[in-house]
Amino acid sequence: MISMEKNVLVGQCGGPTSVANASLAGILETALKMNCEHVYGMANGIQGLLEGKVIELEDELSSAMDIELLKRTPSSYLGSCRYMLPETYEAPESYQKIFSELERLNIGIFLMVGGTDAIDTVRKLSAYGRQIHSEVRFICVPMTVDNDVALTDHTAGYGSAAKYVAVTMKEIIRDAAVYDMPMVTIVQVMGRNTGWLTAAAALARGDDCEGVDLICLPELPFHPDRFIAKVKTMMESKKSIVVAVSEGVRTSDGQYVCELSGEEKLVDAFGHMDLSGTAQYLCRIVREQLQVKTRAIELSTLQRCAGHLTSRVDITEAYQLGGAAVRAGFDGHTGEMVATLRTSDDPYICATEMVDVAEVINRERKVPSEWVNSYKTDMTSAFIAYAKPLIQAELTPIYIGGLPRHIIREA
Amino acid sequence: MISMEKNVLVGQCGGPTSVANASLAGILETALKMNCEHVYGMANGIQGLLEGKVIELEDELSSAMDIELLKRTPSSYLGSCRYMLPETYEAPESYQKIFSELERLNIGIFLMVGGTDAIDTVRKLSAYGRQIHSEVRFICVPMTVDNDVALTDHTAGYGSAAKYVAVTMKEIIRDAAVYDMPMVTIVQVMGRNTGWLTAAAALARGDDCEGVDLICLPELPFHPDRFIAKVKTMMESKKSIVVAVSEGVRTSDGQYVCELSGEEKLVDAFGHMDLSGTAQYLCRIVREQLQVKTRAIELSTLQRCAGHLTSRVDITEAYQLGGAAVRAGFDGHTGEMVATLRTSDDPYICATEMVDVAEVINRERKVPSEWVNSYKTDMTSAFIAYAKPLIQAELTPIYIGGLPRHIIREA
Repeated sequence: MISMEKNVLVGQCGGPTSVANASLAGILETALKMNCEHVYGMANGIQGLLEGKVIELEDELSSAMDIELLKRTPSSYLGSCRYMLPETYEAPESYQKIFSELERLNIGIFLMVGGTDAIDTVRKLSAYGRQIHSEVRFICVPMTVDNDVALTDHTAGYGSAAKYVAVTMKEIIRDAAVYDMPMVTIVQVMGRNTGWLTAAAALARGDDCEGVDLICLPELPFHPDRFIAKVKTMMESKKSIVVAVSEGVRTSDGQYVCELSGEEKLVDAFGHMDLSGTAQYLCRIVREQLQVKTRAIELSTLQRCAGHLTSRVDITEAYQLGGAAVRAGFDGHTGEMVATLRTSDDPYICATEMVDVAEVINRERKVPSEWVNSYKTDMTSAFIAYAKPLIQAELTPIYIGGLPRHIIREA
Repeated sequence: MISMEKNVLVGQCGGPTSVANASLAGILETALKMNCEHVYGMANGIQGLLEGKVIELEDELSSAMDIELLKRTPSSYLGSCRYMLPETYEAPESYQKIFSELERLNIGIFLMVGGTDAIDTVRKLSAYGRQIHSEVRFICVPMTVDNDVALTDHTAGYGSAAKYVAVTMKEIIRDAAVYDMPMVTIVQVMGRNTGWLTAAAALARGDDCEGVDLICLPELPFHPDRFIAKVKTMMESKKSIVVAVSEGVRTSDGQYVCELSGEEKLVDAFGHMDLSGTAQYLCRIVREQLQVKTRAIELSTLQRCAGHLTSRVDITEAYQLGGAAVRAGFDGHTGEMVATLRTSDDPYICATEMVDVAEVINRERKVPSEWVNSYKTDMTSAFIAYAKPLIQAELTPIYIGGLPRHIIREA
């Protein structure tokens, strides 16, 4: 066990989720229970740390109500960043700066909550730490709605986002069925390279909902002609057709479907193309080729950040993963990630285990092809068995005056 | 009082809302309490009635649980239509058909739940009924998220849609603030001619939320240059700027802002232009002129149909308006609408009164200009006092297996 006189430092990075703050709550409460004197937070992740923006979390979040609000506040209480730590040889001064800050703050455990960026940061810092014989332990909590991290059953954040997709898809289906006339609704879901969130649209189906009619994942090549043919066939037996399509679907030659519109696409500093317009383009070709009314819907950032519609399983696990990360640090782990390990779907039983971040890095986890049906139109029961437990139960926001109450840092 | 041996017939028309079925529940329960033998529903509104598609509601919705689920099921249980009844002289055979159906079913009270279409239908049928000395009473329940109906404090459906806008705006603001970098987020809200829903974005502000930075209503001419200038000024003191803009904003020469993109716009059978792309166009000019990262969000049909996020005040009132419509019919009213009549904002006190539909028709109610601040950037406290009571309290869906349970008609 690490000396009790050491402190904990935590950061949040990558895209927002609705449960990242639940992990922060789990980290804070567990560290204080283990008699840490200070739990520090980096404002805006590693970038904030480099700029010396460190806050005392136990001061800012001191009451039990603060913790309850934190669990229910979407996005990142600490703020996030889109800064990737360079390799050691590229920027030794950054590493020296970080480790001198860790020493100054008497940090024993460094935690990063996030997706690929968090894993990368922990890998780099733990490797450097070993080189300089630092005693600081580096642990990450896998937190991303994309669910694309290897060696973990699932990531925190996915369950709530999947629930958001499933619930809103049910409501979109109800809305679209209201007129007694043919219509094709195409709903665009997040997921640049992996279809986990789009696949969650399959959860909408039940004896009170006919479900979505077609699901298009980015793991499979997209053929516009076959797509039109499928929609045409479906319209022969059903008036309102609802399609869930990943923003990241590509043709067999690798071109994003949203590029086919011919509109100029923006590319960000990381080389990621703006993928808006996929649903809109598909609506256009459906209209042109099938002469039917269409509606394009892009699920917005709400799918990752809807604090008003979360999975209680996800929030609880996010809290527990945070706590497990603190304990792993105390137990001497470093350069590791707290992974989820499922032993049963029904009843759902899930534990945690520690995995080496070096094993996780650069291994994007895709939706298994055997979880797509043979017609490539829908998910199989194996996917439903996987995803269903993750969307169970609710944690209602604390509503004050008709609005969910959040806790935020002073500007 | 009408003879107790008469039955009630109800239809739903116009765009979906999340509380139209609560009105249906209020109508059904009130009619049965008043000893109506049958409460019939038109499948897909007046169009369904003309096609003889009439169902017995008390059979389909017979248990207390059915009623509870109905209150929580968004969209229209009966289905809607986009069919406007022609004038009497244009289609006398339609009127004869409708009135012979009313006679066949022994209808004493005809109720239509919806916006402008419902009011128009009740006006035409009640006028024709008077001509032929029919004893059927025709009443409508004002139900539209647009809140654009004259002579009523507000319409059913608006409160829940306004709550959806306010809550999701809070979440979008949290999401957008996560990175420590300049960004402009433009959120497009429904409302072709009136800004009631866009104005509801003003409700997001509170001591836990900085609120939206700019609100653009369709009631005011939109000047792209002044818009850019305002955003530029705001960015001098704040990194993350969030704008709520109505889909229906137009330049001073009457052109929709979404048309300025130069893309071809679709026009539907009613001559309504597809207004998607307003936020996207504004993001483009902000990016080009201010060189800043932007994000365009179009709130989808969820803003009108999110059963998972409703106002309990709205659901309760929708139920009560349904009941009041039945009672008004029994009391001999016809050709009238059940209006809401507010006597106090705080405490919120609201009653109902009957108004002549002929007084309501063709009088689109706009957001009063004195409810916009002098800078034309935000709503005044008078609007907040008006809208705040309408978004209060929640009616949680009944979640089964992680998803809200709905009640739907067999296909």
